[in-house]
Amino acid sequence: MSQRKQVVIIGGGFGGLNAARGLDGADVDITIVDRENHHLFQPLLYQVATSGLSPGAIAVPIRSVVGRQPNTRVVLGEALGVDLTRKEVTLSSGATLRYDWLVVAAGAKTNFFGNEHWAQHTIGLKNLRDAIQIRERVLLAFEAAEQETDDATRKRLLTFVVIGGGPTGVEMAGAISELGRTVLADEYQRIHSSDIRVILVEMATRLLTPFRPDLSASAADQLRELGVELRLGQRVTDVTAAGAVVNGELIPASLVVWASGVQPVSLAQRLGVQLTRRGQVRVDGNCAVLGHPDVFCIGDMAAFIPAGATDALPGLAPVAIQQGRYVARTIRGDLRSMARKPFVYVDKGIMATIGRSRAVVQSGVLTTSGLLAWLAWGFVHIVYLIGFRNRVMVLFEWMWAYVTYKRGTRLVTHLPRGADALPSPHALAPAPGTTGPTSSSPR
Amino acid sequence: MSQRKQVVIIGGGFGGLNAARGLDGADVDITIVDRENHHLFQPLLYQVATSGLSPGAIAVPIRSVVGRQPNTRVVLGEALGVDLTRKEVTLSSGATLRYDWLVVAAGAKTNFFGNEHWAQHTIGLKNLRDAIQIRERVLLAFEAAEQETDDATRKRLLTFVVIGGGPTGVEMAGAISELGRTVLADEYQRIHSSDIRVILVEMATRLLTPFRPDLSASAADQLRELGVELRLGQRVTDVTAAGAVVNGELIPASLVVWASGVQPVSLAQRLGVQLTRRGQVRVDGNCAVLGHPDVFCIGDMAAFIPAGATDALPGLAPVAIQQGRYVARTIRGDLRSMARKPFVYVDKGIMATIGRSRAVVQSGVLTTSGLLAWLAWGFVHIVYLIGFRNRVMVLFEWMWAYVTYKRGTRLVTHLPRGADALPSPHALAPAPGTTGPTSSSPR
Repeated sequence: MSQRKQVVIIGGGFGGLNAARGLDGADVDITIVDRENHHLFQPLLYQVATSGLSPGAIAVPIRSVVGRQPNTRVVLGEALGVDLTRKEVTLSSGATLRYDWLVVAAGAKTNFFGNEHWAQHTIGLKNLRDAIQIRERVLLAFEAAEQETDDATRKRLLTFVVIGGGPTGVEMAGAISELGRTVLADEYQRIHSSDIRVILVEMATRLLTPFRPDLSASAADQLRELGVELRLGQRVTDVTAAGAVVNGELIPASLVVWASGVQPVSLAQRLGVQLTRRGQVRVDGNCAVLGHPDVFCIGDMAAFIPAGATDALPGLAPVAIQQGRYVARTIRGDLRSMARKPFVYVDKGIMATIGRSRAVVQSGVLTTSGLLAWLAWGFVHIVYLIGFRNRVMVLFEWMWAYVTYKRGTRLVTHLPRGADALPSPHALAPAPGTTGPTSSSPR
Repeated sequence: MSQRKQVVIIGGGFGGLNAARGLDGADVDITIVDRENHHLFQPLLYQVATSGLSPGAIAVPIRSVVGRQPNTRVVLGEALGVDLTRKEVTLSSGATLRYDWLVVAAGAKTNFFGNEHWAQHTIGLKNLRDAIQIRERVLLAFEAAEQETDDATRKRLLTFVVIGGGPTGVEMAGAISELGRTVLADEYQRIHSSDIRVILVEMATRLLTPFRPDLSASAADQLRELGVELRLGQRVTDVTAAGAVVNGELIPASLVVWASGVQPVSLAQRLGVQLTRRGQVRVDGNCAVLGHPDVFCIGDMAAFIPAGATDALPGLAPVAIQQGRYVARTIRGDLRSMARKPFVYVDKGIMATIGRSRAVVQSGVLTTSGLLAWLAWGFVHIVYLIGFRNRVMVLFEWMWAYVTYKRGTRLVTHLPRGADALPSPHALAPAPGTTGPTSSSPR
């Protein structure tokens, strides 16, 4: 057996996968470790949550992307810790992986800012489980509301609260409102568009704070056109089984979506290296952990501060992608004992979508809102998807939804069956056009 | 409010959905009750179980099929029982639905033939939950095998037993073998095609007993070409956590799929009407329950014996579809006080697929096996799918799989995360090209 140098990559997201692909053919053995068997295109996760796309359209097995690279091995498992001195990663299976270079790219998880107990009453949006859970909760809320006779309960069932006015929150609120009003309301005989309430809560006084104020205002207008109620400059003080408490007022809701922020996965703390106040790993100009040039940390886990800047790069897919490619180039350079060049982020701008023909884009090439922004958003997301199959699937689903005003994946498959799955005690109201006690509803 | 006549349909499968669609525009109020929110195209369920299709490609919300019919209402819930005298259906929510005509089309469930306790160690194939569970078990078995160092455990992990040599069993065995050998083996560095064992067990001495013996023989040959091990004329005497006991011999396996038979859902017993030995509801020449002309029973739940025949019609989609349409026509006739005409089944033949370019077809038009049968099978299944979107999705996935030899939906999303999800205690073998104790695997 050879004594080839070992590269261990923790995480098969944008950063890790691009690092592995960038090392295709290099004279190293690569092991990529992930807790999931698939790479997830997170920017479109909210469309899985709102019945627009199948999980299979935005996820692709890590193995099918890099499994045929002869120097790359994929391991399903969780990295529990790293021994920086012995250069070993310990997995949850008890096994260890020795490395010459380590790429830590394990991403972020939902941040409840110290209110972890809220997690049982609200759902974040970080993985397919979250998205499918949100999808089923929304669909079951409509089913229950259709059968509900008590007005207050019915109102609660059709109220959805989204916490956090960043891109994820804006996209979720817009998509839930559109799903409810445009797609679902028509198919339920007792639900009218006006019965549906979608409330977006943001602590700051405007949405999408990284964007220019005029784009934030445009996003707010576009959301209001879709019927979303904005609560700007308001604070969530509690989340319970009944709903969310906003500025002291309980908003009864059938679903509270948590889109308020993320934090690095807990592996960051177990590395034993210097973290920022937000819990990210401090890295140098080469994306390497301070004092450990053989350990890279990239993507959402890392705080990379560009030369001359004061803030770290944001947690965006393009940052992770560019860093992944950079790390691969740097390791190739190390193999030939070349001096490392610093990482330079090429900022291509930011964008967020709100709904059909609605979006905002802010970049060097184009800064706009509305239809043009929406088309640009769609184009960029198709291009960044991994694989021909996923591109075709997503494009087809989008065109089909655009033409038919329908959503393709309104399935409830994982919650308990039938009536037991309905989120509240409910009674069945009389069928349309029937009268008399025989069709009435005992509670 | 009007006093329109009420039609209650229990079940949104092929029978119920076709009955509801056939009554579009008729002067009745229709309520369709189902435990699931979606109609499922069961003939392709095995492709969801083997990562070929997304759940969303073969399921469509019942509401989106009939929800915009003005006279039709969809209720998510379970029918607990029927009062044939008061003409009322009781739902699990406690509500009741009065009917003038009742269509019972609730389908079938997995039949363990008195060994219900086997259910905890084997998975049937009746709904999307079953299919997703099988998919994840197969994929996780491969992940675990890739990391396993103990030979016996590894062998067990890569052994899959399918019980039942009818169309479902033949399709499952062929598809698992093909998935393992053609798609997966290439992407795992430590798994070779020859490590994978797929065993199909059938009590009868030939597969596909409803087919002509030469087609059964052809199916057996085609399965063997795909590497499936056939155990014909053998009996399963136990199913445990370790595997299946066949003719007294324990076959250690990571997954046992139960495709051995179905029985009507338990609602059949609660109707209080005459059942056959197999538990099906006896119906007359009008698909009506004996003595209850206002209660139709169709599809897998019903035993319809054609005039002059001795056997009931088989549990096939075309039977349910034709009966659903017939019931709609009959109710329309009843509304105009016309005499009922008997139901006549138009037998278009039977078909089963085995794998890429492999199938058997037996019908009036065509009786053949191999490529031509496979193309005919594909054509018929695309045509019978409900909705343009599903047809395009399935067609695209098939063409993509045909060209790339890949499968599009190899996702594990619902089992516990990462290493905890692996089906057996396992250790991680050394990475390729590494040596020495630092990369070894403590157990």
